[in-house]
Amino acid sequence: MLMTDLIAKKRDGGELSTEEIAFMIEGYTKGEIADYQMSAMCMAILFRGMNDRETLDLTMAMMHSGETIDLSAIAGIKADKHSTGGVGDKTSLILCPMVAACGVKIAKMSGRGLGHTGGTLDKLESFPGFNISIGQRRFIDNVNAIGLSIIGQTADIVPADKKLYALRDVTGTVPSIPLIVSSIMSKKLASGADVIVLDVKCGSGAFMKTEAQARELAEGLTRIGRLAGRRCAAVITDMDQPLGCAVGNAIEVREAISVLKGETKGDLLELCLTLGSCILTEGGLAETTEQARALLQEAVDSGEALKKLAELVAAQDGSAADVYDPVRLPSAPVQLEALSEQSGYVRHIEAEKVGLVSMHLGGGRATKESDIDLAVGLFLHKKVGDRVEKGESLATIHASTPEKAEEAARLLRACYELSDTPVERPAFIKALVH
Amino acid sequence: MLMTDLIAKKRDGGELSTEEIAFMIEGYTKGEIADYQMSAMCMAILFRGMNDRETLDLTMAMMHSGETIDLSAIAGIKADKHSTGGVGDKTSLILCPMVAACGVKIAKMSGRGLGHTGGTLDKLESFPGFNISIGQRRFIDNVNAIGLSIIGQTADIVPADKKLYALRDVTGTVPSIPLIVSSIMSKKLASGADVIVLDVKCGSGAFMKTEAQARELAEGLTRIGRLAGRRCAAVITDMDQPLGCAVGNAIEVREAISVLKGETKGDLLELCLTLGSCILTEGGLAETTEQARALLQEAVDSGEALKKLAELVAAQDGSAADVYDPVRLPSAPVQLEALSEQSGYVRHIEAEKVGLVSMHLGGGRATKESDIDLAVGLFLHKKVGDRVEKGESLATIHASTPEKAEEAARLLRACYELSDTPVERPAFIKALVH
Repeated sequence: MLMTDLIAKKRDGGELSTEEIAFMIEGYTKGEIADYQMSAMCMAILFRGMNDRETLDLTMAMMHSGETIDLSAIAGIKADKHSTGGVGDKTSLILCPMVAACGVKIAKMSGRGLGHTGGTLDKLESFPGFNISIGQRRFIDNVNAIGLSIIGQTADIVPADKKLYALRDVTGTVPSIPLIVSSIMSKKLASGADVIVLDVKCGSGAFMKTEAQARELAEGLTRIGRLAGRRCAAVITDMDQPLGCAVGNAIEVREAISVLKGETKGDLLELCLTLGSCILTEGGLAETTEQARALLQEAVDSGEALKKLAELVAAQDGSAADVYDPVRLPSAPVQLEALSEQSGYVRHIEAEKVGLVSMHLGGGRATKESDIDLAVGLFLHKKVGDRVEKGESLATIHASTPEKAEEAARLLRACYELSDTPVERPAFIKALVH
Repeated sequence: MLMTDLIAKKRDGGELSTEEIAFMIEGYTKGEIADYQMSAMCMAILFRGMNDRETLDLTMAMMHSGETIDLSAIAGIKADKHSTGGVGDKTSLILCPMVAACGVKIAKMSGRGLGHTGGTLDKLESFPGFNISIGQRRFIDNVNAIGLSIIGQTADIVPADKKLYALRDVTGTVPSIPLIVSSIMSKKLASGADVIVLDVKCGSGAFMKTEAQARELAEGLTRIGRLAGRRCAAVITDMDQPLGCAVGNAIEVREAISVLKGETKGDLLELCLTLGSCILTEGGLAETTEQARALLQEAVDSGEALKKLAELVAAQDGSAADVYDPVRLPSAPVQLEALSEQSGYVRHIEAEKVGLVSMHLGGGRATKESDIDLAVGLFLHKKVGDRVEKGESLATIHASTPEKAEEAARLLRACYELSDTPVERPAFIKALVH
């Protein structure tokens, strides 16, 4: 089998066989197939597409390029959640304790933030002492004991994707549905969960700009997940502005705690209720969506969900007291209000740019090696549809120095687009894909 | 400027600017742009195409990646010819002396053979002593003195194409008209001729399988040549069987000499008259095609064309006597007739396979480093449309050993496809593109 022939086959609109796809991914992972052949193949796939059989084979071949996690030692339904990436997305910090409080097991591997998007691991490390590298044994034991654990993704999970994604990133071959689907789903499948829910972001701040694109991706993800024998659902959500109000690390953790306490409602809670009810119904822990939502709401109202977060932090070398008393979390020395220079209605908040403001403050990584300041970030007081008066605060900036705070306030103002006429609040949850 | 952005632009159907194309080719030649980015770009170009402006810019950028030949020290019209490659193609050996005898200057750089196709340089080296590396100075002096010189292509001509073609060859990105056009024309333009004629092969033995594809390529080549300020014409010729009867090196030289002597007519002479009349009319040495053909025919009939070949050989350290007495050329110890095992009419002769038979005999190179036997090859007695009786010879095999001859005869028989009913001789010259 020659890679050149496989490229020509796909280029001419042919269908790659299971063996051909396995040969390609195995050879590429081992370094026997060159980057320049793989990038040409990715571009041919981008133009010609892949049918479900090919996409499933690609996903499975990538999954088998490395270690897969065996969760069979954990009794009950294991669930996992994936988001296509957004600014201010602290959903996992809320959703995982909520569903764990309802009896679903969460054995989750998360990533760090890069560029304008944050990562769950960084946010969790805002809890002093939190250990994301507790090892496979403690990970499984913790899930069995308290229902959830969140750790860093091991290097051995889907090495093909690490190599391939880095290549796609610099060869213009990222925006291909079968390549995106196989990248996401190979990792989710390798992580071993029975139920997988996906949050597909859509809008100016997301990779998928239109709802049609987001739907195509959501349908591709759930179809491949089901073909691989897992229960799957996806939610398409708006990313025309950051999710919730906090952007940073400790700041986002405080917002998550506030939602778990029942103090903060809105989009963030709604998203967690929606994703959570998908997990409970797909996992057979609730008959209907209404029943599932009631169970999740009860977990919040009773304090059980917050307690689960406290148990998680305690079980991974942090202190439960930090959950109940979040003023103990890292906080920045400088706080500055970013005042609006005009009046109007918020039409749009550029999510990606808001993420970059947080990065400039020190709360995000420019490169994988960067250190981050867990205390800095910002808290938005105005979201799309809100009325703003000149001189009113758009957001509170949390910074390490007054200079950085001033600069961030200036950058943040530029993220807001105001309108003279009232603006309708956009539907946050755009669609459910089962 | 980032190569990743340029790939994305072309991927999305955009037009690359002159600066962007120059950046890409310069960066790739210098090794600053990686193979894996260039191969993805080539695949995007294959799918999206390039307009004439982009193709011209690509051609010029490639031409400027290395040395260009200055022929201004040669008085008169300088012409060059390119063939897209065929089996048994000894056209240059006939055409160049013919047009030189009519007063056109030929300062030509040629290549060696590889795989199933032969190369003009190897054929010329069948003349004992023939020197293809006489240096730039003697090259120019010889053209001024006798009207023609043929040498090896210097390593410094279009280095971008050497690198890019090797990449395209293993990444499924060869069959793209703008990439083929820029590869061919960058070298022709760098070689400095005023008039360029192109022989675009078409059929089962050629890269372009259909006449429509061949026409698209021929039109692309001549259009870009003209946009670059040269006079251009192309001929689309049939490659459903080898060109002429001889396949090998010294064997092909003997056939060329026979045509120049006026002893052999047929397709080969017709092709040289057609290409030659394009050169004479485009170069202003004849008013009409008829006049041009008459001049060329007169060069053959008078012996002037043969004399030019003798002058060429003598001027490049060979012996003119070998031209007038070609039995002095290398000849193989074993000659064997490949007898037909059935009767019928020749429907098809697989040109590529015939080339491989010659290669197996030792007359062609499997790799760039292979040594070749100039004496071996074969001479076809039957061509498409001919009647063959069982036991009649299809071809004479010229081999170094009886074993190789037997094997070649067996392989050669398999190249012939016979029909029970009469077969029309195909039109050899399919179209002229001005």
